[in-house]
Amino acid sequence: MTIRIGIMGYGNLGRGIECAIAQNSDTTLAAVFTRRNPETVKIQTPNVPVYHADDAIAHKDEIDVLVLCGGSATDLPEQTPYYAKYFNVVDSYDTHATIPEHFEKVDASARQSGKVGIISVGWDPGMFSLNRLYGNAILVDGKDYTFWGKGVSQGHSDAIRRVKGVKDARQYTVPVDVALEAVRNGENPELTTREKHTRVCYVVAEDGADLAQIENDIKTMPNYFADYDTTVHFITEEELKRDHSGIPHGGFVIRSGKTGMNGENSHIIEYSLKLDSNPEFTTAVILAYARAAVRLYNEGAKGAKTVFDIPPAYLSPKSGAELRKELL
Amino acid sequence: MTIRIGIMGYGNLGRGIECAIAQNSDTTLAAVFTRRNPETVKIQTPNVPVYHADDAIAHKDEIDVLVLCGGSATDLPEQTPYYAKYFNVVDSYDTHATIPEHFEKVDASARQSGKVGIISVGWDPGMFSLNRLYGNAILVDGKDYTFWGKGVSQGHSDAIRRVKGVKDARQYTVPVDVALEAVRNGENPELTTREKHTRVCYVVAEDGADLAQIENDIKTMPNYFADYDTTVHFITEEELKRDHSGIPHGGFVIRSGKTGMNGENSHIIEYSLKLDSNPEFTTAVILAYARAAVRLYNEGAKGAKTVFDIPPAYLSPKSGAELRKELL
Repeated sequence: MTIRIGIMGYGNLGRGIECAIAQNSDTTLAAVFTRRNPETVKIQTPNVPVYHADDAIAHKDEIDVLVLCGGSATDLPEQTPYYAKYFNVVDSYDTHATIPEHFEKVDASARQSGKVGIISVGWDPGMFSLNRLYGNAILVDGKDYTFWGKGVSQGHSDAIRRVKGVKDARQYTVPVDVALEAVRNGENPELTTREKHTRVCYVVAEDGADLAQIENDIKTMPNYFADYDTTVHFITEEELKRDHSGIPHGGFVIRSGKTGMNGENSHIIEYSLKLDSNPEFTTAVILAYARAAVRLYNEGAKGAKTVFDIPPAYLSPKSGAELRKELL
Repeated sequence: MTIRIGIMGYGNLGRGIECAIAQNSDTTLAAVFTRRNPETVKIQTPNVPVYHADDAIAHKDEIDVLVLCGGSATDLPEQTPYYAKYFNVVDSYDTHATIPEHFEKVDASARQSGKVGIISVGWDPGMFSLNRLYGNAILVDGKDYTFWGKGVSQGHSDAIRRVKGVKDARQYTVPVDVALEAVRNGENPELTTREKHTRVCYVVAEDGADLAQIENDIKTMPNYFADYDTTVHFITEEELKRDHSGIPHGGFVIRSGKTGMNGENSHIIEYSLKLDSNPEFTTAVILAYARAAVRLYNEGAKGAKTVFDIPPAYLSPKSGAELRKELL
């Protein structure tokens, strides 16, 4: 049986899901929904309809799972509980602090409709969270470390663009090698914000802008940059386009812990990602969980779930027997 | 509710489980079973009975889950299906080729008794298998790599000990850095056995033994050494004891894959372990799955399971709400 997937929102994530569907032969793209005029939205898959978001409910019987590709700030808090009334849904809600609240809302909605809603899927939250959970369950007496990068932070890039005199910008979050090595060596360091990551900014200034002022405005910006060692490079618009148009990201989750009657043995578990395209990797994860959502629904499950609740085998199109033979 | 754990077999794994129980406040050691004379077995936990293995069934109501600490060659193929008739069980069966057969036997037995049996738990099979599964489900168009080491291979150490003139030996499996780097760089190399690992041997020879002959016998040994670049160091018994008495291990599971409509973006997922004590880490994993076995049983599940079937949250003593708040 082919899994019919709907995409709500056609930005970077929507396009990523579309690519992932093309790679997974047990899935098919049923429809794309957009808040724009559907006639202006060109998608990459032939013969798939694009509808206005307002018409989504009318197509609920054509779709096994709806992937919500909106943002966590304003879209998903509304959309996920709403669409869970009509569809199995998967989202990538990534505001860590308010995940419990989001979960409760989606859970209430999906329990009432009898649908499954998997929230906060991607790599952080998502695969990184899973590795924190596995690491904590195995090494009870231990310490967690998460490093992000090297990669583009959209939020920090946007913050720079709001600085007076800045035309465009790209910000890379870079983990500090010496901190990473200390963790890997089992030294269990206490690390400050500044010791864990540096921030590297590529800035296109407007003609005649005060570069020293821009640099100072960036480096002293509270929350975003003030607590970090920040480097600012001024480049041309052409250089930005040529050298910084990708959306790479990645990072490291490390659990460092001890076992033995007297904690005499040390262990390091490290999970790392090196990604050319943050949205395409995120959506590759989402597609695997969309498969799981449909399978759970078909078994009679309902309500909100997270990556913590999903048996790993449910992510794969292969049978249990195939997985045991090939991958165990 | 405290989980009452029984240990079947008191070797390295049995002692490791005992340490893990001491670190996990929701578990308690109920009894140790041995094929030796119980009076000769001294355990590390006060006030816990040691019984003969033959008497295990009589204690089934005192134990929530029995951890089987025997070997995969002859013990577990018999023990796991047998004890699954009476107990929830967890084993670390690690003969990859015959896992499907072992699974079927344990499944038949546990379905009949209404118990849960989780097989092949540890790090390979176990955490490495999980990472192969997650990697395959996410990066559909990709390639798997597993490297082991640096670590002690018990099987290879034993093989050296059977060579004429050898008194004792320790063998380390070492991943080849240049191969590991090529994989990390996304080069997707095709690697021969020789290109992936080297073997380093520390050998204590008997007095007057022919060292050149020993070295030749080791290096040309089929299956174990002939396909590898092998180094042999002759050392004294004191040096072996002083420098090589630990049981470290570890390794790397890497999934290298592509996304995008034309495979234009590359991604690397890497999971690695660096372990001071192979048996203590293995048993730390087993303990988490013992917790899951009891929880599944209490929910009415039955039959054989593997790490692929267990929702990650079941490994943790924390509630779903706590996990979402703290680790997602």
